[in-house]
This record gives sequence, C-alpha cells and structure tokens, in this order.
Amino acid sequence: MVIKSEEMKSEVREGMRGGPGSVAIQQIASGAALPAKCRLFSIVTLEKGCGIGAHEHSGETELYYVLEGEGVLNDNGALKPFRRGDCNVCGGGATHAVANERDEPLVFVAVIVLE
Amino acid sequence: MVIKSEEMKSEVREGMRGGPGSVAIQQIASGAALPAKCRLFSIVTLEKGCGIGAHEHSGETELYYVLEGEGVLNDNGALKPFRRGDCNVCGGGATHAVANERDEPLVFVAVIVLE
Repeated sequence: MVIKSEEMKSEVREGMRGGPGSVAIQQIASGAALPAKCRLFSIVTLEKGCGIGAHEHSGETELYYVLEGEGVLNDNGALKPFRRGDCNVCGGGATHAVANERDEPLVFVAVIVLE
Repeated sequence: MVIKSEEMKSEVREGMRGGPGSVAIQQIASGAALPAKCRLFSIVTLEKGCGIGAHEHSGETELYYVLEGEGVLNDNGALKPFRRGDCNVCGGGATHAVANERDEPLVFVAVIVLE
C-alpha cells in the first residue's frame, strides 16, 4: 500500500500535554494502515514558542527523530538540545517534553510502539 | 534517552535482497534502545542505480516514509512512483522492492514493527 502525502490526515492541537502554543501533526499512516503494535507514525512540527508538555510513556515506547531545526528536549527531567539527526527514546515509565524556542520550525518523526 | 547522530551505527550493504548496487543504512536506534516489538528504525539512502530487491514481510510490517528524492516502488507487484512525502506500508505477506534511477539520492525512514 502506498499512502500519498495529500491523503494523510493533518491536525493542529492546542496546548498539547499542557505545552505552549500549538502542535501540527501529519499522520503518515493511521487507522487500519498502522501495524497493530504501532499506535502513531507521524510528522510533528513545532513553530517558535510551541511545545508538547511533559508526559509519561508506560506500556509503550515513543521514538522521535529530528528532521529539521533545533529544540529543547526534556528527557525524563534533564533538559538537552535536540537537533536535526538526534533521536529520543522514551518508554518504561519515563517522561519527555519538547519545545522550540528558535525561529526555524522544529520537525520530527514520531513513532509509538506498544509492548 | 537521547541518541546523537554520531552515535548511530551506519553500514553499507551490497546487493541487498538481490537488488542492484549498495544500500546505506543508518540505524537511528538499535539493540536495547529499540522497543521489543520494533526490529528496525533506520534511515535508508539509495544513490542512483541502487535498490533493495523484492522481499516479503510476514509476522511484521515495514513502513517507509520518503524524506528526499524520488524512486520506483514495487508495491506487491505494482510499480509506482515513490516521492518525498509518500509512505509505503508492507505486511501480511505482501512484498515490496525499491530502486532509485535518478541523479538525486532517495532517502527514506524505515520502521519494522512486529506482530
């Protein structure tokens, strides 16, 4: 199956997980196109001043992979730069949050795999 | 956990799945950093004349998401253009193959999720 970008669902979420501003999410695959053990495969875009608030992943693991820009990652309590080419893995009850304080958009792939 | 790009394992495979030329693979996450139900989360780069031969996915699903370039996808027997922003989902015993005939590299994210 091929899914073209124009067929992918896009949404904008305000205050996601209590974070600032809005989050643009393009679902690369969704619904029946997703494997049973995968509940998210999306492109996330954060403009300047926007972010996703801290949240925990239990019973599943979320992987982020940065395609563009540079943000600040809260990696289970530790603030770290989060740049193009970096990966964050969050599971086993750990928490993460991410925000973009730069002029350029922060764009990353997000995948959630269930246990 | 944050994995920096310089920590990621890279390899070049010749004749992958019987395909032409070589395939450059950067493992975004690997080993213990991967969720149990995920056996691959990588960036795949195909230069001109290179490809991955046809192969089947049973008991797992592979998702490709094109970041750069344009290739030709063999989607379970049907040849289709495969461009930046496109997704391919291959599981349930279906097959896929991909090749790049263009001057620009074809770059995509590949994720394999187990059942």
